[in-house]
Amino acid sequence: MSKDLIGQLTEYAAGDAYPFHMPGHKRSPESGPLSALYQVDITEIDGFDNLHQPEDILLEAQKGAANLYGSEETYFLVNGSTCGILSAVSAVAHRGKILIMARNCHKAVYHAAFINHLDVEYIYPKLTDRGLAGGISAREVEELLLEIAGRKQISPKELCNTVAGIMITSPTYDGISSDVKNIVFVAHRYGIPVIVDQAHGAHFGFHPAFPESAVKEGADLVIHSVHKTLPAPTQTALLHRNGDLTDGDLVRKYLRIYQTSSPSYPLMAGIDFCMKIVKEEGKERLGKLLKMREDFLQKVEGLSHIKIDTEWSEAGKLLLFVEKELMTGREFYDILRDDYHLQMEMCGGDYVLAILTMMDREEGFNRLATALWEIDEKLREKADMEEREGKKTSYPELPHGKPEVFLPLYQAYIRPGEVVSLEKAAGLVAAEFINLYPPGIPLLVPGEMIGEEMISSFKKYLENGYTIQGIVTMDAGETGVKVLV
Amino acid sequence: MSKDLIGQLTEYAAGDAYPFHMPGHKRSPESGPLSALYQVDITEIDGFDNLHQPEDILLEAQKGAANLYGSEETYFLVNGSTCGILSAVSAVAHRGKILIMARNCHKAVYHAAFINHLDVEYIYPKLTDRGLAGGISAREVEELLLEIAGRKQISPKELCNTVAGIMITSPTYDGISSDVKNIVFVAHRYGIPVIVDQAHGAHFGFHPAFPESAVKEGADLVIHSVHKTLPAPTQTALLHRNGDLTDGDLVRKYLRIYQTSSPSYPLMAGIDFCMKIVKEEGKERLGKLLKMREDFLQKVEGLSHIKIDTEWSEAGKLLLFVEKELMTGREFYDILRDDYHLQMEMCGGDYVLAILTMMDREEGFNRLATALWEIDEKLREKADMEEREGKKTSYPELPHGKPEVFLPLYQAYIRPGEVVSLEKAAGLVAAEFINLYPPGIPLLVPGEMIGEEMISSFKKYLENGYTIQGIVTMDAGETGVKVLV
Repeated sequence: MSKDLIGQLTEYAAGDAYPFHMPGHKRSPESGPLSALYQVDITEIDGFDNLHQPEDILLEAQKGAANLYGSEETYFLVNGSTCGILSAVSAVAHRGKILIMARNCHKAVYHAAFINHLDVEYIYPKLTDRGLAGGISAREVEELLLEIAGRKQISPKELCNTVAGIMITSPTYDGISSDVKNIVFVAHRYGIPVIVDQAHGAHFGFHPAFPESAVKEGADLVIHSVHKTLPAPTQTALLHRNGDLTDGDLVRKYLRIYQTSSPSYPLMAGIDFCMKIVKEEGKERLGKLLKMREDFLQKVEGLSHIKIDTEWSEAGKLLLFVEKELMTGREFYDILRDDYHLQMEMCGGDYVLAILTMMDREEGFNRLATALWEIDEKLREKADMEEREGKKTSYPELPHGKPEVFLPLYQAYIRPGEVVSLEKAAGLVAAEFINLYPPGIPLLVPGEMIGEEMISSFKKYLENGYTIQGIVTMDAGETGVKVLV
Repeated sequence: MSKDLIGQLTEYAAGDAYPFHMPGHKRSPESGPLSALYQVDITEIDGFDNLHQPEDILLEAQKGAANLYGSEETYFLVNGSTCGILSAVSAVAHRGKILIMARNCHKAVYHAAFINHLDVEYIYPKLTDRGLAGGISAREVEELLLEIAGRKQISPKELCNTVAGIMITSPTYDGISSDVKNIVFVAHRYGIPVIVDQAHGAHFGFHPAFPESAVKEGADLVIHSVHKTLPAPTQTALLHRNGDLTDGDLVRKYLRIYQTSSPSYPLMAGIDFCMKIVKEEGKERLGKLLKMREDFLQKVEGLSHIKIDTEWSEAGKLLLFVEKELMTGREFYDILRDDYHLQMEMCGGDYVLAILTMMDREEGFNRLATALWEIDEKLREKADMEEREGKKTSYPELPHGKPEVFLPLYQAYIRPGEVVSLEKAAGLVAAEFINLYPPGIPLLVPGEMIGEEMISSFKKYLENGYTIQGIVTMDAGETGVKVLV
């Protein structure tokens, strides 16, 4: 019998076995458009192993993924990078009371700190010239470590009993990487594990034109969303573990806690299938993608009012900036979707973001190039017609002084809150996350004090068309924010 | 546009929209047997709402499910009943320090107590005459509540600030229900919420021959695995919330924490599709199932050595007991699978369990009836030939006195452990769960003392062919158990 999970599932479905077991759809062909999914959707019957106690085909599949990334241990995740992040942070939480994290980490990292009752110390990423969150440097990490040692009046050697771990996101949603290698070097000198949320970099390390993977750069725990930049189904991911600073038993314990005890075989088969494509064709396909990207960039050379970032983001992301006085990112995004049927991943105040993967086709690039020329032409007409007021796109400026922590996240996030108008919020304490998109950084975390300066910034961002999550419209139409009672 | 999720996904897939977004497979037809799944696998693009902030099609779908079950609020779960249980327990954890739970709850309930640092007080289910875990009664709940009040020297009125919630599993894996209605009545008299893990009873309440659903019986939080007994994909479930003893905001907060931020659309569409089948055809299909079951039971009337339980389990479960002196449950299970290609859900020491759902077909019942007659014939020959020693199948006897708690679960489960031989384990503290199958009840929970009597029981169960999870084989071949260092 083949050791390929999807092959084995398909073979099983073609047989005459009658299912007196879960799932309750019984692989019935009555399920219409979902029938193909249901055909290979089984439970842990004989021959199909058990994700939480793998001994056979799932153990082999995970070992294959570990080999591919050069990791000591790799785990398939069916609850997304979310459960990898929760498990990774939980598995280091016994080491110390403090989690050092980049302020632009995914909300799952904040959640992990919350449920593990960790005190959080932030590193604020510097912003790029276009207001995107940049990378974190090893120097910033070391400075914070020594600052903590000073503040806690402990020797640097004792930091490993105080700091549970260091958590960063690299690359970001926008494709901007941090200096993982040197951060690991610094952290390990103090005996502290590094967790890298590399959800957006599962394709790293498979072609020389892309950055190295955080696994190869020495991180202790690395999370890869295989559905984001590789051909795997949504909600699938990998967790890699390496080295002696973390405990494999504990990681597995937490994965059993945060993942369903009924993992989906189609999702697991999707990860397995993805690993095989990457192993056998990954380099070639990435090469083909880079070639298509190059051809595309040549085709759109000379656009007047649309700029393509080739400085900050890795090649798997395409950031298309538009002059905001002529068109907002949202308008740009809507036109691409409505007029050209090109669905972008997201938009910021003055840009749209496309995700490029090894499964992209020339058709997509050609249609995008045509669309950009046409839109650019319209922007040119508009620019010529309009009396330009010399407005310049304004970008966020962070940090606004680091907000003062009134209550730790793990105490504040469980407390009841009430909505008050922005006018009355100064001096009160945030009860919810207030996130600025872009760059996707919390301006306020539950438990942090709301300063006057912060409120002015909120207003400025809202006026400039930025999206601020956590700001609510009150009954009277006023802008409000949830504060601790 | 149709408000049916799978219809909308299929329609979108048939269009010419080019995906510059996740997932990275880009709905490519190159994905072989997974292509059909990938065709409808998208991310939160416009028109497809957001599970964690539903406003449109997913809000409507969840409201539809709430209407179907008669619940105030219903949430789609893509991380199985596991995340429903974690969220439900977490959402009541601020109410008090103690969780009252049936000892035969799913491991996710123990995990929820662990991560929420709850002290646990158990109600041990009585065992049926065949050694299965039976139901919990309202009287047992009330007795424990009053016992806790006495022990803590508080008035019964103060129990609602001491006991966070009461958690039971109903029905069990074997299909045995508890007296949910009266348990709720008792609990609410003391102002304490009841959480029912009804993972195996998602089909309850849709036909008069089946028990009423725990939602209708007044439980505050109810978890339904729609993939277990209804036609939905593996890993999908529902969480229902009702009444004023629990907080919807908190429940949603925890669902955002324990569920992936990239929920799978095929899984969500599967839940939606399942709700539609149940609504439109549920009663009729369940009626058809009951008819097939009745016909089957008539066909197998008169079997000599195989007994079908019609006393304890609900009609969605078929428990086939075999005389263990002639054949073990495992042998029975293997013969059904290998010789008849009838895959059962699981086996116990002297029985196999089949799950029957509204998607079953007459073919399955007919094949099973034929198989049972043939196996019974062989058993008769064997019984006639063999000198019967008058052995009787022995069943577990629980409890062995409730084990003494040395450390609370939330302290013990994170501590390092080591394996010692059973001979040396008396007087030491368990570091892992030791579960007996069947009835699927932990004999020991991490932090509990290992008594002499318990060790004798382990040996007896192992001799009798029971499976004990958590018992390990040591290098020297000895039987061992993990204890706290």
